[in-house]
Amino acid sequence: MTELRSVPEPGSLLVGTDGALTGRTSVYEKRLGDMGGVYRDESAYRDLLAELGPDHLVYRVEEHRCAEGPGALTIGTSTMQPGRVGAEYAVTRGHLHAVPDRAELYHCLSGNGLLLLETLDGRSEALELEPGRAVHVPGHWVHRSVNTGDEPLVTLFCYNTDAGQNYDLIAQAGGMASLVVEDGEGGWTLRRNPDHVGYPGAVA
Amino acid sequence: MTELRSVPEPGSLLVGTDGALTGRTSVYEKRLGDMGGVYRDESAYRDLLAELGPDHLVYRVEEHRCAEGPGALTIGTSTMQPGRVGAEYAVTRGHLHAVPDRAELYHCLSGNGLLLLETLDGRSEALELEPGRAVHVPGHWVHRSVNTGDEPLVTLFCYNTDAGQNYDLIAQAGGMASLVVEDGEGGWTLRRNPDHVGYPGAVA
Repeated sequence: MTELRSVPEPGSLLVGTDGALTGRTSVYEKRLGDMGGVYRDESAYRDLLAELGPDHLVYRVEEHRCAEGPGALTIGTSTMQPGRVGAEYAVTRGHLHAVPDRAELYHCLSGNGLLLLETLDGRSEALELEPGRAVHVPGHWVHRSVNTGDEPLVTLFCYNTDAGQNYDLIAQAGGMASLVVEDGEGGWTLRRNPDHVGYPGAVA
Repeated sequence: MTELRSVPEPGSLLVGTDGALTGRTSVYEKRLGDMGGVYRDESAYRDLLAELGPDHLVYRVEEHRCAEGPGALTIGTSTMQPGRVGAEYAVTRGHLHAVPDRAELYHCLSGNGLLLLETLDGRSEALELEPGRAVHVPGHWVHRSVNTGDEPLVTLFCYNTDAGQNYDLIAQAGGMASLVVEDGEGGWTLRRNPDHVGYPGAVA
């Protein structure tokens, strides 16, 4: 029998298109000083760090959790600032879920960008994010958000709390297989990352 | 080792504020003829059925699924037409998840209404839905959407595909404990449902 007294209260959330999540239970921020090793052009990263300082905001996540266990969801907003490091557009660290079969929803509320997705065995997708567009990330896809616009990229996300995040996998692979870089005409293009050595655990 | 060849493609979805879900994998609709026993005022329901016919649309669900298994999500839109049956505002059938610990997100895209939530042991909540407002429904809450406005109520939802829906529980209880009815001044109010006999399985 379920212990009904332990059933948590539902969450009433106000979801701003600026990423403000009224009713949230936690917030975290990633700043430029946290992003070492994420961008391929290390010299451009060091120059930007010297220019903007380690506390410069890169992205902010506000989220709501109300339970643990296999059925629990984490619902939140991610707000990524625009910018580039060298030719590479601003990215989140990116992850595979620690429980890799867990899926995730990203629903774009404002701004313009991409969700970059790769499987361990080399499939790759870059799916557009713009207001009203959503991406359903199935399990087993490494994924990261990329801000290719001039404004903050804001998404509403939803995933199973027990999914967790494996943030080390991308570093172990020498970065994701694709880089999202400026195309010289004000837009973006995908470029193969020559440092990518394949993901650990991939089937040969 | 994961069978990587079976990893499904991610879904790129265009989510209209009118509920149109471009990229969907399925659609279902509930029509007035499907709603027998849902509303308390059976005479008003029969009159409306005679007036509008059994094919009159009550709500439409468009959804995207790309996998099965414990980590898979169902992402979709629900579009509820406005209206009343007697004093009672338009409702979805309502459900507890068949796997009751599974949670759900409802994010309102347009219209005005409520999410009505009840635990098996008698707790009750009515949480407002308006554009930009979301409700995080934890597991173990019976829930239904209610359109209290003059326009379609459109929500984006996300839940674990393995959650399933128990639609019989509310009928077994004589209806939900609370009814959302007109207040005589153009708004809504909650009224205790005298036919509600408690949910089966509740701890005494």
